[in-house]
Amino acid sequence: MSTASPRFLTVEGIEGVGKSTQVARLSQALSERGIAHVVTREPGGTPLAEKIRDIVLHSRDEAVPPMAELLLMFAARAVHLSNHVEPNLRAGRWVVCDRFIDATYAYQGGGRHLSLDNIRQLEAMVLGARRPDLTVLLDTPVPQALQRAQQRNAGAAADRFESERTEFFERVRAAYLARAAAEPRRIETVDAAQSVDEVAARILELLEARSWIS
Amino acid sequence: MSTASPRFLTVEGIEGVGKSTQVARLSQALSERGIAHVVTREPGGTPLAEKIRDIVLHSRDEAVPPMAELLLMFAARAVHLSNHVEPNLRAGRWVVCDRFIDATYAYQGGGRHLSLDNIRQLEAMVLGARRPDLTVLLDTPVPQALQRAQQRNAGAAADRFESERTEFFERVRAAYLARAAAEPRRIETVDAAQSVDEVAARILELLEARSWIS
Repeated sequence: MSTASPRFLTVEGIEGVGKSTQVARLSQALSERGIAHVVTREPGGTPLAEKIRDIVLHSRDEAVPPMAELLLMFAARAVHLSNHVEPNLRAGRWVVCDRFIDATYAYQGGGRHLSLDNIRQLEAMVLGARRPDLTVLLDTPVPQALQRAQQRNAGAAADRFESERTEFFERVRAAYLARAAAEPRRIETVDAAQSVDEVAARILELLEARSWIS
Repeated sequence: MSTASPRFLTVEGIEGVGKSTQVARLSQALSERGIAHVVTREPGGTPLAEKIRDIVLHSRDEAVPPMAELLLMFAARAVHLSNHVEPNLRAGRWVVCDRFIDATYAYQGGGRHLSLDNIRQLEAMVLGARRPDLTVLLDTPVPQALQRAQQRNAGAAADRFESERTEFFERVRAAYLARAAAEPRRIETVDAAQSVDEVAARILELLEARSWIS
């Protein structure tokens, strides 16, 4: 078993870049190295936070005003941090999270044009000093990602976000890339047009370069 | 029918002061005067906002962290304002609301010791320039109010807030009174130890004094 500090890793990117696949590969690689960890996701990650996620993503009979969406996202995050992420880190387990704070800047900020000042205020309220130790941003051009997302969802009802238009995802991608440019130490951008094996290997290299795994 | 501007009225106070009764009496008095209005409540007031209310008040299997509670309250408020309060005011109907922003300062601020700075930031995000035209604060000593609340709830499961202790409600009441002292033009404190008829008459006097009804 590893005795090093547990790490908080987040994986970000727009629909169709292969986040779920890479989170699973990363989990497998940590298990092979005997590193205790949990895999989780946002919005969601606990039963209560998943209930809030459901309200945000699946309200069909009544519009969710953009500000309400933003507050629900941060409410779910407050629940997830307090009831799942922090207790696991305290217990010495790594946390691998599919989407986190950068998704809010990308989707609600870039995508829905909500005020970045408001997002920053909410980030300060909810995260306190907690930040991911490493964020992997999986990046590909939008048309390629959406094609992959559509194939995956063929026959399934797309959720409210996945039914948005290409223009929206271009704004989301641009906001993600701006985050990565502003925080190059924390956020590593990985070319998700590579094969699954190549992307997985690149992510492990990032952990090895930090001496978190060997 | 009245042709004056529609008014946004809120009724506040701790459990057991008679808010529901007075909201109903006020609604009846407005109807008798031919004033088109809707009666609503917070948290809640629309199907979506009621779903959020349900999460806040009835989560039993998982703790609701105080910050999450605060954000859910404001998310429900953003939904209620955008989808119900503002459309009704625009359509010329008065809105009578059982609890609104002052309840957040009283319960989450006074009761749960959440940061007033955070509440003020959220108020600015969600309310914009919208404030009640008049807020009636129904006030009695806490033991008297709780006795009334307990009689009403005999046999029914108390919700999470109503099962709190006297000390909590003393803080809530103090926060309400501080709000009223800071905004004496908007918030009128009414002695709720009076009879139902006396309280109802006093509330109508407050509207008459503003020449909103005659």
